[in-house]
Amino acid sequence: MKIIVIGGVAGGASAAARARRMSEDAEIVVFERGLYPSFANCGLPYYVGGEIASRDKLLVAPIEMLRQRHRLDVRVQSEVTRIDRDKAVVHVHDAAQNRDYTETYDKLIIATGASPFRPPIPGIDSDRVLELRDLPDADRMHTAATSGAKHAVIVGAGFIGIEVAENLVRRDIEVTIVELAEQVLPPWDAEMVQPIEDHLRQQGVRLRLSESATAFAETPSGIDVTLKSGETVQADFAVVCIGVRPESRLSLEAGLEIGPRGGVIVNDSMQTSDPNIYAVGDVVEVQDFVAKQPTQIPLAGPANRQGRIAADHIFGKPATYRGTQGTAIVGVFGKTAAMTGQSEKQLIRNQVPYEKIYIHPSDHAGYYPGATAMTLKLIFAPHDGAILGAQCVGTNGVDKRIDVLAIAIQAGLTVFDLEETELCYAPQYGHAKDPINMAGFVASNVIRKDHPIVHVDAIEQADDSETFVLDVRTTAEFAGGHIQGATNIPIEELRDRLDEVPTDKQIVAYCKVGQRGYLATRALLQNGYRVVNLSGGYTTWQRRHQPDTSAGS
Amino acid sequence: MKIIVIGGVAGGASAAARARRMSEDAEIVVFERGLYPSFANCGLPYYVGGEIASRDKLLVAPIEMLRQRHRLDVRVQSEVTRIDRDKAVVHVHDAAQNRDYTETYDKLIIATGASPFRPPIPGIDSDRVLELRDLPDADRMHTAATSGAKHAVIVGAGFIGIEVAENLVRRDIEVTIVELAEQVLPPWDAEMVQPIEDHLRQQGVRLRLSESATAFAETPSGIDVTLKSGETVQADFAVVCIGVRPESRLSLEAGLEIGPRGGVIVNDSMQTSDPNIYAVGDVVEVQDFVAKQPTQIPLAGPANRQGRIAADHIFGKPATYRGTQGTAIVGVFGKTAAMTGQSEKQLIRNQVPYEKIYIHPSDHAGYYPGATAMTLKLIFAPHDGAILGAQCVGTNGVDKRIDVLAIAIQAGLTVFDLEETELCYAPQYGHAKDPINMAGFVASNVIRKDHPIVHVDAIEQADDSETFVLDVRTTAEFAGGHIQGATNIPIEELRDRLDEVPTDKQIVAYCKVGQRGYLATRALLQNGYRVVNLSGGYTTWQRRHQPDTSAGS
Repeated sequence: MKIIVIGGVAGGASAAARARRMSEDAEIVVFERGLYPSFANCGLPYYVGGEIASRDKLLVAPIEMLRQRHRLDVRVQSEVTRIDRDKAVVHVHDAAQNRDYTETYDKLIIATGASPFRPPIPGIDSDRVLELRDLPDADRMHTAATSGAKHAVIVGAGFIGIEVAENLVRRDIEVTIVELAEQVLPPWDAEMVQPIEDHLRQQGVRLRLSESATAFAETPSGIDVTLKSGETVQADFAVVCIGVRPESRLSLEAGLEIGPRGGVIVNDSMQTSDPNIYAVGDVVEVQDFVAKQPTQIPLAGPANRQGRIAADHIFGKPATYRGTQGTAIVGVFGKTAAMTGQSEKQLIRNQVPYEKIYIHPSDHAGYYPGATAMTLKLIFAPHDGAILGAQCVGTNGVDKRIDVLAIAIQAGLTVFDLEETELCYAPQYGHAKDPINMAGFVASNVIRKDHPIVHVDAIEQADDSETFVLDVRTTAEFAGGHIQGATNIPIEELRDRLDEVPTDKQIVAYCKVGQRGYLATRALLQNGYRVVNLSGGYTTWQRRHQPDTSAGS
Repeated sequence: MKIIVIGGVAGGASAAARARRMSEDAEIVVFERGLYPSFANCGLPYYVGGEIASRDKLLVAPIEMLRQRHRLDVRVQSEVTRIDRDKAVVHVHDAAQNRDYTETYDKLIIATGASPFRPPIPGIDSDRVLELRDLPDADRMHTAATSGAKHAVIVGAGFIGIEVAENLVRRDIEVTIVELAEQVLPPWDAEMVQPIEDHLRQQGVRLRLSESATAFAETPSGIDVTLKSGETVQADFAVVCIGVRPESRLSLEAGLEIGPRGGVIVNDSMQTSDPNIYAVGDVVEVQDFVAKQPTQIPLAGPANRQGRIAADHIFGKPATYRGTQGTAIVGVFGKTAAMTGQSEKQLIRNQVPYEKIYIHPSDHAGYYPGATAMTLKLIFAPHDGAILGAQCVGTNGVDKRIDVLAIAIQAGLTVFDLEETELCYAPQYGHAKDPINMAGFVASNVIRKDHPIVHVDAIEQADDSETFVLDVRTTAEFAGGHIQGATNIPIEELRDRLDEVPTDKQIVAYCKVGQRGYLATRALLQNGYRVVNLSGGYTTWQRRHQPDTSAGS
């Protein structure tokens, strides 16, 4: 058996190592265009910022380890330029020796990944417009960031854009982020990333949302970035990270089936339309685990698992890829945002019915020092409570809650199951009723119709003459800020002041985070009122109506 | 509807509050023997140690909140002395007014909890022998710990004993822990808590394992604790925390069915043998979720959920308790140990077939600063891979992994599912192949017979003439310490030195944590050798054979 793997990180290296474990006598050749067949690409921004001080740390599996420990025939600076499926050979260009040759294969694994998208903007080819895909990119950005640069413009506020922003700030560089969408992290729901936007501004990052770069012009000392609005931002260098595209040219030219997003089409054993050719990682189109629709999600974890599956399948082991959930996380200046499954945006786009709830718990028991706030949004099917997606933003414990919900989605659990989930509890780690349980309680009560809720967008549209907005917080909380037109009756007094609540209107109750509003809703419902609770309370309302733009500019 | 709840924390208060949400017009009376119907009992040790500085923080739901917000008729210093089921009344002693009266009920909820077990040891009734169940206990211990005490003896190394030890050390008190078992945290598997023992010793805590207190004798300035070995430990005060017993006397006297462990028997709606009487929390016998056998597990999370379920059932809502998994966590001096499901000990006792694997990953990517080591033990059914239990010990990220495995057990997932789990990955949070995935990979390979393993206890028993122990680490690692009699052939050289590996013996391969040993096992298997890999490698071997007793005494 002779296996050829095109590309190292991360799916290619996983596939090759797994293939070796499956077979001692297989001949396994890995072609890597660059110098590094296995490096920590998710660590690149942190090397730029100095958090990872040593470049060697990024070399996860040095070539010698791949060669000696796994007996892989790793050939670097070796680009596969053509796949000849009829002859089952690949054409290789060896850049070091400047020679071309062919290599036969029994099975071929394509792991060419994805490359940063560079839109046709005038001046984008300047040396002062950087990107961040591989080690040489990181070297260039490291040099730029440590050579006295004072200003940088980042085009694109996705994961990489935000991580690069944090790391350039760490280098005392003033950063402007330009993003076409109205929000950072465009695939996420806007209200969930707003705390990240606030936090970026508080750290001095200038956000230019609903904005785009229209031209790059080199100056004697740097580069001017012209924005659509007409503003020109002067910088020492710019970074473009507006997403990636599957690097599928080789596959396309070989006649393999390619999807509408440019990804190679594979079956659930990672086989392409040619059964002798597999493809894994960012180059393939995957199935969304929840939506059961084709999508393109570049993630390291799925790439690794796909590599294993391709190798297993080659050696006759049963192995199927179940789809990608889109579990993702980003940290920035100590804050964390994470998500799994479908966003509300995606569900709306796909016209899938859903309900959602917001809670604002602390990461651990409030009576133990150091508790920090988080916001958790849980999205679920209104008929049966199946969990469709979750997003969380906060300081500590965010990754834990999204990981638990990720495996809950994998297992097909419902919100009713979350009510019963038994998680670790000691006061420094969580709650006797963990945020996961709380989300389950709230969502289950909604489905059971014990807890009718409303969302902030509906309040904007509510006709005042028909609606009575009831603030059940304390008078002090009310005085500190409230929804315009609301009437304040603290929950503790509500039952004695029912005559102040109109019987002919729709009551919208709210408190700070939703809990007292829920108690008020229960009390009023049982007294015959038409009442709903504002999910997430005033805290969620503020996210939409009073973003903190006090800091930054 | 008139509901009487006997006892507050944690199940009683949950039941009462939930009952109010279910019914505005129910009459709900909560009898609390002490002064505090709802306090943070899991926080008591941290108040003693000063980590929680303010005692008020422990009053989670002050009486006024229960009365005003939930309209509960809370009566403190009011002990229910008798339940008269025929008349459906309870007899109450009001200690404040020193009067006795009766109160009728339609439904009764018993949440009397569990009380610390005090064995009949001479002198145990001394005022200098403390326990820690409620706020007055905490007040006494707080006073003792902040009144110049220099030495304390803790009898019992369960959760509370260990938490109290940490907090007394925080008060500069020298602590001796006396524990009857050979290990701390007796319900856990010994090798998994050994790092906690090492850590306690390193912090100066003296451990007396396989040891017990036989007498307490007051001295002019303190108390002498005599141990079974004959040693006498002089201390300012002692703490007894050797477990709790269900406080079921009231239920027993009322003729309710009681289990062999003293817990009140309930059905899955938390009803006792009298359908008008419910019992929740530490006083009830529960079903072990995994073993499907009756057990007694005092935990705050389950108590809260049981309270909800009892209230729901009273109001005709479908609600069933699914059993207790035993998810638990303890932190001590920055280390964390957590578990869920069945321990190996329990499975052996119950004669349930199982397999286990050990891994020693870091909490996040090793190339990102601050990664810390953890040990994860996964226990699963050998025939189908069903997850039976997990234990984890380390510094960071321990709670996250056990929470993920807790919900995996709840969902009935297998180790094959863990291979496919898609968790959050950025280098500061985890791995592209998370420890959860790694555990799934290793366990699945074992079940698929791709990866035959052996455990450290089998090596002790192995006949040397039949066994060849092969250390595949580097020569430097080997020189730093190895299993006696092992032969060193680094994995990188193994394939060229196969002639040094005997074909007529059972090969036991090992490395530091198991990964290179796995590669060696795969290579040797395919070359016709009989070979197994030592699960968890030298790290697990050291746990058993070379506990770190260098510090402490």
